[in-house]
Amino acid sequence: MMFRRLAVIGTGLIGGSLALALRECGEVGEVVGYSRRLETRLAAERLGLIDRPADSIGEAVSDADLIFLATPVGAMDVVLGEVADCLPDDALITDGGSVKGAVVERARARLAPGQLCRFVPGHPIAGREHSGPDAATADLYRGQRVILTPLGENRDEDVARIEAMWAACGARVERLDVVHHDHVLAATSHLPHAAAFAMVSSLARLAERYEVFRYAAGGFRDFTRIASSDPVMWRDICLDNRVEILDMLGRYRDELDRLRDMLDRDDGEAIERYFAEAKAVRDALYPAARLDDSAERDG
Amino acid sequence: MMFRRLAVIGTGLIGGSLALALRECGEVGEVVGYSRRLETRLAAERLGLIDRPADSIGEAVSDADLIFLATPVGAMDVVLGEVADCLPDDALITDGGSVKGAVVERARARLAPGQLCRFVPGHPIAGREHSGPDAATADLYRGQRVILTPLGENRDEDVARIEAMWAACGARVERLDVVHHDHVLAATSHLPHAAAFAMVSSLARLAERYEVFRYAAGGFRDFTRIASSDPVMWRDICLDNRVEILDMLGRYRDELDRLRDMLDRDDGEAIERYFAEAKAVRDALYPAARLDDSAERDG
Repeated sequence: MMFRRLAVIGTGLIGGSLALALRECGEVGEVVGYSRRLETRLAAERLGLIDRPADSIGEAVSDADLIFLATPVGAMDVVLGEVADCLPDDALITDGGSVKGAVVERARARLAPGQLCRFVPGHPIAGREHSGPDAATADLYRGQRVILTPLGENRDEDVARIEAMWAACGARVERLDVVHHDHVLAATSHLPHAAAFAMVSSLARLAERYEVFRYAAGGFRDFTRIASSDPVMWRDICLDNRVEILDMLGRYRDELDRLRDMLDRDDGEAIERYFAEAKAVRDALYPAARLDDSAERDG
Repeated sequence: MMFRRLAVIGTGLIGGSLALALRECGEVGEVVGYSRRLETRLAAERLGLIDRPADSIGEAVSDADLIFLATPVGAMDVVLGEVADCLPDDALITDGGSVKGAVVERARARLAPGQLCRFVPGHPIAGREHSGPDAATADLYRGQRVILTPLGENRDEDVARIEAMWAACGARVERLDVVHHDHVLAATSHLPHAAAFAMVSSLARLAERYEVFRYAAGGFRDFTRIASSDPVMWRDICLDNRVEILDMLGRYRDELDRLRDMLDRDDGEAIERYFAEAKAVRDALYPAARLDDSAERDG
């Protein structure tokens, strides 16, 4: 057993799923959970994600040897402050935040030097557009990538322990530089989410709203699925990775303008080449997935 | 049996699926198929989509009482010209083109008045990002919407026959004005496709291309699925619904700029409200679908 007691701060999808996964593989003894809202803690207990709820972050982390921070990134500042006040000497901390630069900055501000070296920042690239304890599953991380962005202060063996923990949950663990992480995720995750929210909004704004959506096909459904994601979580991500996301929004806008120009000058050849190149990239990325995409209906 | 002989021009996904569906419900006698490429015609025959391939459009339509045009919309001009030369007196024509204004314009130019009245334009809002005869299935249209955009010249009973044909395939048939159709589809289908192609392109353009895609999550996969669609088909749609798509690209760009402004001024409240409103619209649209969205992984 890797850890005696896991404290999960934020017992929703991400935190609850880690608890379930670690328990399933027998790598954790007890799981204590804290969420700001009482009903979330109680739901997590009722659903068997945690063994018992704690009434405060301090109570949750006392006597834990692993602390997993799974709140929206905007709450990390307060959470880290409370963790710092009660952190046992031998406990490791890791997190599941989708933005790493801002979280690391907060950790540097809130944790004492002797505590900071025990915080190994991480990001499991897994999730669903549903959130909350009900959505947690033991296999959420199976086969998914988890990126660790270790600090210079971390001891190698502590990073290795967090790596082993994720590997025990079936994840493929990699290390990336913090800045690189935030840049790459802005492109592959944060931009698509922003674009999906904006797509739904631009259609909602059309006068014939009802009718527009009435004729929406599967392409639209899939394209906008991520617009059903949690607004608070995504607000926090946007604010915390603001510069990178602004940059990516600018690039995306340039790309849309490029396409608009081709269309404006009626350049069928350029449009076909543009689409063919994008298709080639996309098909190369998901050669297997294409065959299961039978749910896709469009037109 | 509604029709004695169906001529399918374009024996790919859309044409092949209609042939399969009509045969399955016993509403068609013989199916003759023509595709520009010999191998497509032969594949359609081998796969049992058609009873026999024809060597020309003229051969295919002669003695047919229903003609289904299922080529990319850009080919419709030539196809309609050849159909006009050999059209039997009692045959009905319908099509599956994703843009209706341009198709109707071509029909008006190519068909004689006595022929035009027998052309009932249609658009089955169904499809997959895979195309070609291999992708055809008898149930492609089951539960899907088919929009007819009848001409003033059409006889009511002819429109009713085409409606009954689609209903026999399990589709929900509705009528829309041509202009309204092209406007609505620009929003719900054409814009999302353009946006998905542009999204893949903007990521492909990043220097760290390989790494960017390496960390792409399920949100990106779903968001860009439609970028695996056929480039020629989508080039034609863009050119044929150019004005409407340019308008929608402009609206989408305004929406992205709106979001960018909120981010630029660090306005978390506005961002959260913006996301929450989009989520509410999206959740209301797909209340049931949300529960099956378990394939969605993101982060």
